[in-house]
Amino acid sequence: MSAVDVPSGRPATRATPAPGDPVLARLSLNQKTTPSWDVPGLVEGAVRAGLDWVGLWREPAQEYGVERTAKLVADAGLRVSTLCRGGFLTAADAEGRRRALEDNRRAIDEAAALGTPYLVMVVGGLPSGDRDLVGARERVASAITELVDHAAGSGVQLSLEPMHPIYCADRGVISTLGQALDLAERFTPDQVGVTVDTFHVWWDPDVEAQIARAGQRISSFQVCDWITPLPADALLARGVMGDGHIDFRSLLRAVTAAGYTGPIEVEIFHADVWAADPDEVVATMARRYVEHVLGE
Amino acid sequence: MSAVDVPSGRPATRATPAPGDPVLARLSLNQKTTPSWDVPGLVEGAVRAGLDWVGLWREPAQEYGVERTAKLVADAGLRVSTLCRGGFLTAADAEGRRRALEDNRRAIDEAAALGTPYLVMVVGGLPSGDRDLVGARERVASAITELVDHAAGSGVQLSLEPMHPIYCADRGVISTLGQALDLAERFTPDQVGVTVDTFHVWWDPDVEAQIARAGQRISSFQVCDWITPLPADALLARGVMGDGHIDFRSLLRAVTAAGYTGPIEVEIFHADVWAADPDEVVATMARRYVEHVLGE
Repeated sequence: MSAVDVPSGRPATRATPAPGDPVLARLSLNQKTTPSWDVPGLVEGAVRAGLDWVGLWREPAQEYGVERTAKLVADAGLRVSTLCRGGFLTAADAEGRRRALEDNRRAIDEAAALGTPYLVMVVGGLPSGDRDLVGARERVASAITELVDHAAGSGVQLSLEPMHPIYCADRGVISTLGQALDLAERFTPDQVGVTVDTFHVWWDPDVEAQIARAGQRISSFQVCDWITPLPADALLARGVMGDGHIDFRSLLRAVTAAGYTGPIEVEIFHADVWAADPDEVVATMARRYVEHVLGE
Repeated sequence: MSAVDVPSGRPATRATPAPGDPVLARLSLNQKTTPSWDVPGLVEGAVRAGLDWVGLWREPAQEYGVERTAKLVADAGLRVSTLCRGGFLTAADAEGRRRALEDNRRAIDEAAALGTPYLVMVVGGLPSGDRDLVGARERVASAITELVDHAAGSGVQLSLEPMHPIYCADRGVISTLGQALDLAERFTPDQVGVTVDTFHVWWDPDVEAQIARAGQRISSFQVCDWITPLPADALLARGVMGDGHIDFRSLLRAVTAAGYTGPIEVEIFHADVWAADPDEVVATMARRYVEHVLGE
Protein backbone atom coordinates (compact mmCIF):
# COMPACT_ATOMS: atom_id res chain seq x y z
CA MET A 1 0.00 0.00 0.00
CA SER A 2 1.53 3.29 -0.97
CA ALA A 3 0.32 6.61 0.36
CA VAL A 4 -1.73 8.62 -2.12
CA ASP A 5 -1.28 12.30 -2.65
CA VAL A 6 -4.88 13.33 -2.12
CA PRO A 7 -5.60 15.61 -0.53
CA SER A 8 -3.14 16.33 2.25
CA GLY A 9 -0.38 13.87 1.59
CA ARG A 10 -0.96 12.22 4.94
CA PRO A 11 0.51 8.74 4.85
CA ALA A 12 -2.00 5.91 4.67
CA THR A 13 -2.40 4.43 8.12
CA ARG A 14 -4.25 1.34 6.97
CA ALA A 15 -4.78 -0.74 3.87
CA THR A 16 -7.62 0.19 1.52
CA PRO A 17 -10.47 -2.24 2.24
CA ALA A 18 -10.76 -4.85 -0.51
CA PRO A 19 -13.90 -4.96 -2.67
CA GLY A 20 -16.45 -7.09 -0.87
CA ASP A 21 -15.12 -6.25 2.57
CA PRO A 22 -18.28 -5.94 4.70
CA VAL A 23 -16.77 -2.84 6.33
CA LEU A 24 -17.79 -0.97 3.17
CA ALA A 25 -21.44 -2.11 3.23
CA ARG A 26 -22.84 1.32 4.14
CA LEU A 27 -20.40 3.53 2.25
CA SER A 28 -21.99 5.55 -0.55
CA LEU A 29 -19.98 7.47 -3.13
CA ASN A 30 -21.63 10.77 -3.89
CA GLN A 31 -21.16 11.64 -7.53
CA LYS A 32 -19.74 15.09 -6.70
CA THR A 33 -16.75 13.52 -4.97
CA THR A 34 -15.50 12.25 -8.34
CA PRO A 35 -17.05 14.73 -10.80
CA SER A 36 -14.69 13.84 -13.62
CA TRP A 37 -16.55 10.55 -13.99
CA ASP A 38 -19.69 10.56 -16.09
CA VAL A 39 -22.45 8.14 -15.09
CA PRO A 40 -20.84 5.03 -16.63
CA GLY A 41 -17.51 6.06 -15.10
CA LEU A 42 -19.10 6.43 -11.70
CA VAL A 43 -20.87 3.09 -11.92
CA GLU A 44 -17.73 1.27 -13.04
CA GLY A 45 -15.62 3.01 -10.41
CA ALA A 46 -18.03 2.19 -7.61
CA VAL A 47 -18.19 -1.45 -8.71
CA ARG A 48 -14.38 -1.66 -8.96
CA ALA A 49 -14.12 -0.39 -5.39
CA GLY A 50 -16.70 -2.90 -4.19
CA LEU A 51 -19.28 -0.32 -3.14
CA ASP A 52 -23.00 -1.01 -2.89
CA TRP A 53 -24.24 2.59 -2.92
CA VAL A 54 -23.93 5.78 -4.92
CA GLY A 55 -25.44 9.23 -4.41
CA LEU A 56 -26.49 10.89 -7.65
CA TRP A 57 -26.86 14.47 -8.87
CA ARG A 58 -29.51 15.61 -11.27
CA GLU A 59 -27.33 17.26 -13.93
CA PRO A 60 -25.05 14.30 -14.81
CA ALA A 61 -28.01 11.92 -14.60
CA GLN A 62 -29.98 14.14 -16.99
CA GLU A 63 -27.00 14.36 -19.30
CA TYR A 64 -26.72 10.57 -19.52
CA GLY A 65 -30.49 10.17 -19.46
CA VAL A 66 -32.44 9.51 -16.27
CA GLU A 67 -33.92 6.15 -17.38
CA ARG A 68 -30.58 5.03 -18.79
CA THR A 69 -28.86 6.02 -15.54
CA ALA A 70 -31.42 4.11 -13.50
CA LYS A 71 -30.91 0.97 -15.61
CA LEU A 72 -27.12 1.18 -15.61
CA VAL A 73 -26.99 1.63 -11.84
CA ALA A 74 -29.47 -1.18 -11.15
CA ASP A 75 -27.85 -3.59 -13.61
CA ALA A 76 -24.54 -3.02 -11.84
CA GLY A 77 -26.14 -4.04 -8.55
CA LEU A 78 -25.79 -0.57 -7.06
CA ARG A 79 -28.39 1.27 -5.04
CA VAL A 80 -28.99 5.02 -5.04
CA SER A 81 -28.78 6.55 -1.55
CA THR A 82 -30.03 10.05 -2.47
CA LEU A 83 -30.62 12.38 -5.36
CA CYS A 84 -29.09 15.86 -5.06
CA ARG A 85 -30.79 18.20 -5.24
CA GLY A 86 -34.10 19.90 -5.12
CA GLY A 87 -34.70 23.25 -3.47
CA PHE A 88 -33.84 26.86 -4.32
CA LEU A 89 -37.29 27.84 -3.21
CA THR A 90 -36.73 31.41 -2.00
CA ALA A 91 -37.67 33.42 -5.09
CA ALA A 92 -39.80 36.37 -4.07
CA ASP A 93 -41.50 36.89 -7.46
CA ALA A 94 -44.37 34.78 -8.76
CA GLU A 95 -42.62 33.66 -11.93
CA GLY A 96 -39.44 32.64 -10.11
CA ARG A 97 -41.50 30.73 -7.60
CA ARG A 98 -43.54 28.99 -10.31
CA ARG A 99 -40.40 27.89 -12.11
CA ALA A 100 -38.83 26.64 -8.87
CA LEU A 101 -41.87 24.55 -8.00
CA GLU A 102 -42.00 23.11 -11.51
CA ASP A 103 -38.32 22.23 -11.38
CA ASN A 104 -38.75 20.57 -8.01
CA ARG A 105 -41.61 18.45 -9.30
CA ARG A 106 -39.28 17.28 -12.06
CA ALA A 107 -36.60 16.54 -9.45
CA ILE A 108 -39.10 14.46 -7.49
CA ASP A 109 -39.97 12.50 -10.64
CA GLU A 110 -36.28 11.94 -11.32
CA ALA A 111 -35.67 10.65 -7.80
CA ALA A 112 -38.53 8.19 -8.24
CA ALA A 113 -37.21 7.11 -11.64
CA LEU A 114 -33.70 6.64 -10.24
CA GLY A 115 -35.04 4.42 -7.48
CA THR A 116 -34.16 6.54 -4.47
CA PRO A 117 -36.81 7.59 -1.96
CA TYR A 118 -34.83 10.67 -0.91
CA LEU A 119 -34.54 14.01 -2.65
CA VAL A 120 -32.03 16.23 -0.84
CA MET A 121 -33.34 19.80 -0.59
CA VAL A 122 -30.91 22.74 -0.57
CA VAL A 123 -33.52 25.37 0.02
CA GLY A 124 -31.85 28.47 -1.46
CA GLY A 125 -30.43 31.74 -0.16
CA LEU A 126 -31.61 35.34 -0.18
CA PRO A 127 -32.75 36.68 -3.54
CA SER A 128 -30.38 39.30 -4.92
CA GLY A 129 -30.62 42.54 -2.96
CA ASP A 130 -33.14 41.08 -0.51
CA ARG A 131 -32.30 41.25 3.20
CA ASP A 132 -35.51 39.76 4.55
CA LEU A 133 -34.25 36.48 5.94
CA VAL A 134 -37.44 35.77 7.86
CA GLY A 135 -39.46 36.22 4.67
CA ALA A 136 -37.17 33.91 2.68
CA ARG A 137 -37.56 31.25 5.33
CA GLU A 138 -41.33 31.60 5.23
CA ARG A 139 -41.35 31.16 1.45
CA VAL A 140 -39.38 27.93 1.83
CA ALA A 141 -41.96 26.57 4.27
CA SER A 142 -44.78 27.52 1.96
CA ALA A 143 -43.09 25.92 -1.07
CA ILE A 144 -42.42 22.68 0.82
CA THR A 145 -46.12 22.59 1.68
CA GLU A 146 -46.93 22.89 -2.01
CA LEU A 147 -44.54 20.07 -2.95
CA VAL A 148 -45.28 17.36 -0.39
CA ASP A 149 -48.30 15.85 -2.12
CA HIS A 150 -46.50 15.40 -5.42
CA ALA A 151 -43.51 13.97 -3.56
CA ALA A 152 -45.48 11.56 -1.37
CA GLY A 153 -47.49 10.48 -4.40
CA SER A 154 -44.19 9.55 -6.07
CA GLY A 155 -42.84 7.72 -3.03
CA VAL A 156 -40.21 10.39 -2.50
CA GLN A 157 -39.39 12.10 0.77
CA LEU A 158 -38.19 15.70 0.68
CA SER A 159 -35.03 15.63 2.77
CA LEU A 160 -34.23 19.10 4.10
CA GLU A 161 -30.53 19.70 4.36
CA PRO A 162 -29.55 22.35 6.90
CA MET A 163 -26.61 24.23 5.46
CA HIS A 164 -23.66 25.62 7.38
CA PRO A 165 -24.38 29.29 8.20
CA ILE A 166 -21.55 30.24 5.87
CA TYR A 167 -24.07 29.55 3.06
CA CYS A 168 -27.08 31.27 4.60
CA ALA A 169 -26.96 34.28 2.28
CA ASP A 170 -26.42 32.52 -1.01
CA ARG A 171 -27.36 28.86 -0.78
CA GLY A 172 -29.51 27.72 2.09
CA VAL A 173 -31.52 29.74 4.62
CA ILE A 174 -32.12 26.64 6.72
CA SER A 175 -29.08 26.91 8.97
CA THR A 176 -29.53 24.39 11.77
CA LEU A 177 -30.91 20.91 12.19
CA GLY A 178 -33.35 22.26 14.76
CA GLN A 179 -34.71 24.74 12.24
CA ALA A 180 -35.03 21.98 9.59
CA LEU A 181 -36.94 19.85 12.06
CA ASP A 182 -39.26 22.71 13.01
CA LEU A 183 -40.31 22.70 9.37
CA ALA A 184 -40.18 18.93 8.79
CA GLU A 185 -42.41 18.25 11.78
CA ARG A 186 -45.29 20.03 10.10
CA PHE A 187 -45.46 16.93 7.88
CA THR A 188 -45.25 13.16 8.32
CA PRO A 189 -41.82 11.51 8.28
CA ASP A 190 -42.76 9.90 4.96
CA GLN A 191 -43.21 13.33 3.47
CA VAL A 192 -40.37 15.40 4.89
CA GLY A 193 -37.12 14.32 6.53
CA VAL A 194 -33.64 15.71 7.07
CA THR A 195 -30.17 15.17 5.68
CA VAL A 196 -27.48 15.29 8.34
CA ASP A 197 -24.21 16.37 6.72
CA THR A 198 -21.33 16.59 9.19
CA PHE A 199 -19.81 19.57 7.37
CA HIS A 200 -22.95 21.59 7.90
CA VAL A 201 -23.86 20.66 11.47
CA TRP A 202 -20.70 19.72 13.36
CA TRP A 203 -20.28 23.14 15.03
CA ASP A 204 -23.83 23.27 16.44
CA PRO A 205 -23.86 23.09 20.25
CA ASP A 206 -27.31 21.55 19.97
CA VAL A 207 -26.50 18.98 17.29
CA GLU A 208 -26.69 15.82 19.41
CA ALA A 209 -30.04 16.78 20.93
CA GLN A 210 -31.41 17.64 17.50
CA ILE A 211 -30.19 14.36 15.98
CA ALA A 212 -31.98 12.53 18.78
CA ARG A 213 -35.08 14.59 18.08
CA ALA A 214 -34.85 13.83 14.34
CA GLY A 215 -35.08 10.08 14.91
CA GLN A 216 -36.70 8.34 11.95
CA ARG A 217 -36.72 11.55 9.93
CA ILE A 218 -33.01 11.16 9.18
CA SER A 219 -32.94 10.08 5.56
CA SER A 220 -29.27 10.61 4.82
CA PHE A 221 -26.05 10.84 6.81
CA GLN A 222 -23.30 12.51 4.82
CA VAL A 223 -19.68 12.97 5.79
CA CYS A 224 -16.86 15.29 4.88
CA ASP A 225 -14.50 17.34 6.99
CA TRP A 226 -14.20 21.00 8.00
CA ILE A 227 -10.68 22.08 7.12
CA THR A 228 -8.72 25.20 8.07
CA PRO A 229 -7.62 27.54 6.80
CA LEU A 230 -10.82 27.59 4.81
CA PRO A 231 -10.02 27.29 1.08
CA ALA A 232 -10.43 30.54 -0.86
CA ASP A 233 -13.53 29.30 -2.67
CA ALA A 234 -16.07 28.67 0.08
CA LEU A 235 -18.02 26.33 -2.19
CA LEU A 236 -15.00 24.04 -2.54
CA ALA A 237 -14.08 24.02 1.13
CA ARG A 238 -14.89 20.43 2.08
CA GLY A 239 -12.11 18.14 3.14
CA VAL A 240 -11.59 14.39 3.20
CA MET A 241 -12.39 12.82 6.55
CA GLY A 242 -9.36 13.06 8.81
CA ASP A 243 -7.97 16.24 7.24
CA GLY A 244 -9.98 18.56 9.47
CA HIS A 245 -11.65 19.15 12.78
CA ILE A 246 -14.79 17.02 12.82
CA ASP A 247 -15.31 14.19 15.28
CA PHE A 248 -17.19 11.84 12.93
CA ARG A 249 -17.45 8.98 15.38
CA SER A 250 -19.51 10.95 17.88
CA LEU A 251 -21.87 12.10 15.13
CA LEU A 252 -22.21 8.54 13.79
CA ARG A 253 -22.95 7.35 17.32
CA ALA A 254 -25.65 10.02 17.59
CA VAL A 255 -27.42 9.14 14.31
CA THR A 256 -27.13 5.44 15.17
CA ALA A 257 -28.69 6.04 18.58
CA ALA A 258 -31.47 7.93 16.76
CA GLY A 259 -32.16 4.75 14.77
CA TYR A 260 -30.40 5.53 11.49
CA THR A 261 -28.95 2.42 9.83
CA GLY A 262 -28.80 3.61 6.20
CA PRO A 263 -25.95 4.45 3.88
CA ILE A 264 -23.19 6.87 4.81
CA GLU A 265 -22.55 9.13 1.88
CA VAL A 266 -19.26 10.87 1.18
CA GLU A 267 -19.66 14.16 -0.62
CA ILE A 268 -16.48 16.20 -1.01
CA PHE A 269 -16.15 19.48 -2.86
CA HIS A 270 -12.47 20.32 -3.06
CA ALA A 271 -10.36 21.40 -6.02
CA ASP A 272 -7.45 19.06 -5.17
CA VAL A 273 -9.77 16.09 -4.74
CA TRP A 274 -11.49 16.88 -8.01
CA ALA A 275 -8.14 17.12 -9.81
CA ALA A 276 -6.91 13.76 -8.50
CA ASP A 277 -7.34 10.35 -10.11
CA PRO A 278 -10.88 9.32 -9.15
CA ASP A 279 -9.93 5.70 -8.38
CA GLU A 280 -7.33 7.02 -5.94
CA VAL A 281 -9.93 9.36 -4.44
CA VAL A 282 -12.29 6.44 -3.89
CA ALA A 283 -9.52 4.36 -2.31
CA THR A 284 -8.60 7.23 0.03
CA MET A 285 -12.24 7.82 0.82
CA ALA A 286 -12.77 4.16 1.74
CA ARG A 287 -9.70 4.07 3.95
CA ARG A 288 -10.50 7.32 5.70
CA TYR A 289 -14.12 6.24 6.12
CA VAL A 290 -13.08 3.11 7.96
CA GLU A 291 -10.53 4.96 10.08
CA HIS A 292 -12.31 8.22 10.90
CA VAL A 293 -16.02 7.52 10.55
CA LEU A 294 -16.41 3.90 11.63
CA GLY A 295 -13.38 4.20 13.89
CA GLU A 296 -12.47 0.59 13.36
CA MET B 1 -20.50 65.04 -1.60
CA SER B 2 -18.61 62.69 -3.86
CA ALA B 3 -18.87 58.93 -3.64
CA VAL B 4 -15.88 57.25 -2.10
CA ASP B 5 -14.35 54.13 -3.48
CA VAL B 6 -14.52 52.00 -0.37
CA PRO B 7 -15.36 49.25 -0.52
CA SER B 8 -17.90 48.62 -3.26
CA GLY B 9 -17.97 51.88 -5.12
CA ARG B 10 -21.65 52.33 -4.38
CA PRO B 11 -22.57 55.95 -4.81
CA ALA B 12 -23.19 57.88 -1.63
CA THR B 13 -26.90 58.20 -1.09
CA ARG B 14 -26.68 60.84 1.61
CA ALA B 15 -24.32 63.47 2.92
CA THR B 16 -21.79 62.46 5.53
CA PRO B 17 -23.15 63.62 8.89
CA ALA B 18 -21.29 66.68 10.11
CA PRO B 19 -19.26 66.48 13.32
CA GLY B 20 -21.55 67.21 16.22
CA ASP B 21 -24.63 65.85 14.43
CA PRO B 22 -26.56 64.07 17.20
CA VAL B 23 -27.23 61.22 14.76
CA LEU B 24 -23.67 60.09 15.47
CA ALA B 25 -24.04 60.06 19.26
CA ARG B 26 -23.91 56.27 19.59
CA LEU B 27 -21.48 55.46 16.78
CA SER B 28 -18.22 53.93 17.97
CA LEU B 29 -15.19 53.46 15.72
CA ASN B 30 -13.51 50.17 16.46
CA GLN B 31 -9.79 50.52 16.08
CA LYS B 32 -9.58 47.54 13.68
CA THR B 33 -11.70 49.36 11.12
CA THR B 34 -8.83 51.82 10.54
CA PRO B 35 -5.78 49.77 11.54
CA SER B 36 -3.34 52.06 9.75
CA TRP B 37 -3.92 54.64 12.47
CA ASP B 38 -1.90 54.31 15.65
CA VAL B 39 -3.54 55.45 18.88
CA PRO B 40 -2.96 59.19 18.33
CA GLY B 41 -4.14 58.80 14.73
CA LEU B 42 -7.29 57.05 15.87
CA VAL B 43 -8.04 59.66 18.52
CA GLU B 44 -7.50 62.55 16.11
CA GLY B 45 -9.53 60.83 13.37
CA ALA B 46 -12.44 60.11 15.69
CA VAL B 47 -12.44 63.70 16.94
CA ARG B 48 -12.27 65.05 13.35
CA ALA B 49 -15.33 62.99 12.47
CA GLY B 50 -17.19 64.20 15.55
CA LEU B 51 -17.44 60.81 17.22
CA ASP B 52 -17.86 60.29 20.95
CA TRP B 53 -16.80 56.65 21.14
CA VAL B 54 -13.95 54.37 20.12
CA GLY B 55 -13.44 50.63 20.57
CA LEU B 56 -9.86 49.71 21.39
CA TRP B 57 -7.66 46.67 20.85
CA ARG B 58 -5.02 45.52 23.26
CA GLU B 59 -2.01 45.37 20.93
CA PRO B 60 -2.03 48.97 19.64
CA ALA B 61 -2.91 50.25 23.13
CA GLN B 62 0.02 48.31 24.60
CA GLU B 63 2.29 49.60 21.87
CA TYR B 64 1.42 53.22 22.67
CA GLY B 65 1.24 52.47 26.39
CA VAL B 66 -1.99 51.64 28.17
CA GLU B 67 -1.89 54.58 30.59
CA ARG B 68 -0.89 56.98 27.82
CA THR B 69 -3.71 55.68 25.65
CA ALA B 70 -6.21 56.12 28.46
CA LYS B 71 -5.10 59.71 29.02
CA LEU B 72 -5.05 60.63 25.34
CA VAL B 73 -8.53 59.21 24.76
CA ALA B 74 -10.00 60.86 27.86
CA ASP B 75 -8.32 64.22 27.18
CA ALA B 76 -9.90 64.18 23.70
CA GLY B 77 -13.32 63.73 25.26
CA LEU B 78 -13.73 60.23 23.83
CA ARG B 79 -15.13 57.25 25.66
CA VAL B 80 -14.06 53.63 25.19
CA SER B 81 -16.95 51.31 24.29
CA THR B 82 -15.07 48.01 24.58
CA LEU B 83 -11.61 46.51 24.74
CA CYS B 84 -10.90 43.69 22.29
CA ARG B 85 -10.03 41.11 23.28
CA GLY B 86 -9.68 38.55 25.97
CA GLY B 87 -10.29 34.87 25.49
CA PHE B 88 -8.43 32.04 23.74
CA LEU B 89 -9.20 29.83 26.69
CA THR B 90 -9.32 26.38 25.07
CA ALA B 91 -5.78 25.14 25.66
CA ALA B 92 -5.90 21.52 26.79
CA ASP B 93 -2.51 21.51 28.54
CA ALA B 94 -1.86 22.96 31.99
CA GLU B 95 0.85 25.37 30.88
CA GLY B 96 -1.21 26.73 27.97
CA ARG B 97 -4.14 27.19 30.27
CA ARG B 98 -2.05 28.95 32.92
CA ARG B 99 -0.66 31.35 30.37
CA ALA B 100 -4.12 32.06 28.95
CA LEU B 101 -5.55 32.86 32.37
CA GLU B 102 -2.61 35.11 33.18
CA ASP B 103 -2.99 36.95 29.88
CA ASN B 104 -6.71 37.40 30.48
CA ARG B 105 -6.07 38.88 33.91
CA ARG B 106 -3.77 41.40 32.22
CA ALA B 107 -6.49 42.11 29.66
CA ILE B 108 -8.96 42.75 32.47
CA ASP B 109 -6.52 45.17 34.10
CA GLU B 110 -6.03 46.94 30.77
CA ALA B 111 -9.78 47.32 30.27
CA ALA B 112 -10.06 48.87 33.71
CA ALA B 113 -7.11 51.18 33.02
CA LEU B 114 -8.60 52.24 29.68
CA GLY B 115 -11.88 53.12 31.34
CA THR B 116 -14.16 50.60 29.69
CA PRO B 117 -16.25 48.17 31.72
CA TYR B 118 -16.37 45.62 28.88
CA LEU B 119 -13.72 43.15 27.84
CA VAL B 120 -14.83 41.33 24.67
CA MET B 121 -14.04 37.63 24.90
CA VAL B 122 -13.22 35.62 21.77
CA VAL B 123 -13.01 32.29 23.49
CA GLY B 124 -10.71 30.34 21.16
CA GLY B 125 -10.99 27.39 18.78
CA LEU B 126 -9.96 23.76 18.92
CA PRO B 127 -6.34 23.14 19.91
CA SER B 128 -4.27 21.81 17.01
CA GLY B 129 -5.20 18.21 16.20
CA ASP B 130 -7.96 18.14 18.81
CA ARG B 131 -11.47 17.21 17.64
CA ASP B 132 -13.18 17.26 21.04
CA LEU B 133 -15.46 20.26 20.64
CA VAL B 134 -17.50 19.44 23.73
CA GLY B 135 -14.31 19.33 25.79
CA ALA B 136 -13.08 22.67 24.41
CA ARG B 137 -16.39 24.26 25.30
CA GLU B 138 -16.18 22.88 28.83
CA ARG B 139 -12.69 24.32 29.27
CA VAL B 140 -13.99 27.76 28.25
CA ALA B 141 -16.71 27.57 30.88
CA SER B 142 -14.22 26.53 33.50
CA ALA B 143 -11.79 29.33 32.58
CA ILE B 144 -14.53 31.97 32.69
CA THR B 145 -15.36 30.73 36.19
CA GLU B 146 -11.74 31.27 37.17
CA LEU B 147 -11.66 34.80 35.76
CA VAL B 148 -14.91 36.35 36.99
CA ASP B 149 -13.68 37.34 40.44
CA HIS B 150 -10.66 39.19 39.11
CA ALA B 151 -12.86 40.85 36.49
CA ALA B 152 -15.63 41.88 38.86
CA GLY B 153 -13.04 43.12 41.34
CA SER B 154 -11.73 45.40 38.59
CA GLY B 155 -15.17 46.61 37.57
CA VAL B 156 -14.91 44.79 34.25
CA GLN B 157 -17.55 42.54 32.72
CA LEU B 158 -16.43 39.61 30.58
CA SER B 159 -18.47 40.02 27.41
CA LEU B 160 -18.74 36.69 25.58
CA GLU B 161 -18.81 37.14 21.82
CA PRO B 162 -20.48 34.30 19.97
CA MET B 163 -18.57 33.83 16.74
CA HIS B 164 -20.02 32.86 13.36
CA PRO B 165 -19.74 29.07 12.98
CA ILE B 166 -17.23 29.66 10.19
CA TYR B 167 -14.76 30.34 13.02
CA CYS B 168 -15.72 27.47 15.30
CA ALA B 169 -12.63 25.38 14.55
CA ASP B 170 -9.98 28.06 14.77
CA ARG B 171 -11.25 31.09 16.68
CA GLY B 172 -14.31 30.71 18.83
CA VAL B 173 -16.15 27.59 19.99
CA ILE B 174 -19.06 29.69 21.25
CA SER B 175 -21.15 29.68 18.08
CA THR B 176 -24.55 31.08 18.99
CA LEU B 177 -25.95 33.76 21.24
CA GLY B 178 -28.02 31.09 23.00
CA GLN B 179 -24.89 29.14 23.81
CA ALA B 180 -23.16 32.31 25.08
CA LEU B 181 -26.13 33.03 27.32
CA ASP B 182 -26.20 29.47 28.67
CA LEU B 183 -22.72 30.20 29.97
CA ALA B 184 -23.26 33.85 30.94
CA GLU B 185 -26.31 32.99 33.02
CA ARG B 186 -24.18 31.00 35.42
CA PHE B 187 -22.96 34.40 36.62
CA THR B 188 -24.46 37.80 37.43
CA PRO B 189 -24.89 40.32 34.60
CA ASP B 190 -22.17 42.43 36.20
CA GLN B 191 -19.77 39.56 35.82
CA VAL B 192 -20.54 38.08 32.41
CA GLY B 193 -22.43 39.56 29.46
CA VAL B 194 -22.55 39.15 25.70
CA THR B 195 -21.39 41.04 22.64
CA VAL B 196 -23.91 40.95 19.80
CA ASP B 197 -22.06 41.37 16.50
CA THR B 198 -24.37 41.31 13.49
CA PHE B 199 -21.77 39.52 11.35
CA HIS B 200 -21.67 36.62 13.76
CA VAL B 201 -25.36 36.22 14.61
CA TRP B 202 -27.45 37.46 11.67
CA TRP B 203 -28.07 33.98 10.19
CA ASP B 204 -29.35 32.46 13.45
CA PRO B 205 -33.05 31.55 13.21
CA ASP B 206 -33.23 32.05 16.97
CA VAL B 207 -31.41 35.39 17.12
CA GLU B 208 -34.34 37.65 18.01
CA ALA B 209 -35.51 35.37 20.82
CA GLN B 210 -31.98 35.14 22.18
CA ILE B 211 -31.48 38.92 22.05
CA ALA B 212 -34.69 39.29 24.05
CA ARG B 213 -33.41 36.71 26.50
CA ALA B 214 -30.05 38.51 26.77
CA GLY B 215 -31.68 41.72 28.00
CA GLN B 216 -29.34 43.68 30.25
CA ARG B 217 -26.48 41.27 29.56
CA ILE B 218 -25.89 42.91 26.17
CA SER B 219 -22.74 44.92 26.71
CA SER B 220 -21.89 45.71 23.11
CA PHE B 221 -23.74 45.87 19.81
CA GLN B 222 -21.35 45.69 16.87
CA VAL B 223 -22.16 46.04 13.19
CA CYS B 224 -20.62 44.99 9.92
CA ASP B 225 -22.05 43.20 6.91
CA TRP B 226 -21.95 39.65 5.53
CA ILE B 227 -20.81 39.92 1.94
CA THR B 228 -20.83 37.37 -0.88
CA PRO B 229 -18.92 35.91 -2.47
CA LEU B 230 -17.02 35.47 0.74
CA PRO B 231 -13.53 37.01 0.36
CA ALA B 232 -10.73 34.46 0.02
CA ASP B 233 -9.36 35.19 3.48
CA ALA B 234 -12.16 34.28 5.88
CA LEU B 235 -10.66 36.50 8.57
CA LEU B 236 -10.99 39.56 6.32
CA ALA B 237 -14.51 38.83 5.15
CA ARG B 238 -16.45 41.62 6.85
CA GLY B 239 -18.14 44.24 4.74
CA VAL B 240 -19.28 47.81 5.26
CA MET B 241 -22.94 48.08 6.18
CA GLY B 242 -25.04 48.11 3.04
CA ASP B 243 -22.65 46.03 0.95
CA GLY B 244 -24.09 42.71 2.03
CA HIS B 245 -27.08 40.76 3.22
CA ILE B 246 -27.72 41.81 6.81
CA ASP B 247 -30.90 43.56 7.91
CA PHE B 248 -29.34 45.82 10.54
CA ARG B 249 -32.50 47.68 11.39
CA SER B 250 -34.32 44.60 12.60
CA LEU B 251 -31.35 43.62 14.77
CA LEU B 252 -31.08 47.15 16.18
CA ARG B 253 -34.81 47.06 16.95
CA ALA B 254 -34.29 43.75 18.77
CA VAL B 255 -31.40 44.95 20.96
CA THR B 256 -33.29 48.19 21.64
CA ALA B 257 -36.37 46.23 22.70
CA ALA B 258 -34.09 44.21 24.98
CA GLY B 259 -33.09 47.48 26.67
CA TYR B 260 -29.74 48.19 25.05
CA THR B 261 -29.03 51.91 24.65
CA GLY B 262 -25.22 51.86 24.49
CA PRO B 263 -22.77 52.57 21.70
CA ILE B 264 -22.98 50.89 18.31
CA GLU B 265 -19.51 49.82 17.33
CA VAL B 266 -18.35 49.37 13.75
CA GLU B 267 -15.66 46.73 13.37
CA ILE B 268 -14.72 45.89 9.79
CA PHE B 269 -12.00 43.48 8.72
CA HIS B 270 -11.57 43.83 4.97
CA ALA B 271 -8.42 44.26 2.88
CA ASP B 272 -9.92 47.01 0.68
CA VAL B 273 -11.19 48.95 3.70
CA TRP B 274 -7.82 48.63 5.39
CA ALA B 275 -6.05 49.87 2.26
CA ALA B 276 -8.26 52.96 1.90
CA ASP B 277 -7.72 56.40 3.40
CA PRO B 278 -8.93 56.06 6.99
CA ASP B 279 -10.71 59.45 7.03
CA GLU B 280 -12.67 58.30 3.96
CA VAL B 281 -13.43 55.00 5.68
CA VAL B 282 -14.79 56.84 8.71
CA ALA B 283 -16.91 59.12 6.49
CA THR B 284 -18.34 56.11 4.63
CA MET B 285 -18.90 54.30 7.90
CA ALA B 286 -20.84 57.23 9.34
CA ARG B 287 -22.98 57.60 6.22
CA ARG B 288 -23.73 53.89 5.97
CA TYR B 289 -24.42 53.73 9.71
CA VAL B 290 -27.10 56.38 9.42
CA GLU B 291 -28.60 54.83 6.30
CA HIS B 292 -28.43 51.12 7.04
CA VAL B 293 -28.28 50.78 10.81
CA LEU B 294 -30.35 53.68 12.10
CA GLY B 295 -32.44 53.67 8.94
CA GLU B 296 -32.94 57.41 9.11
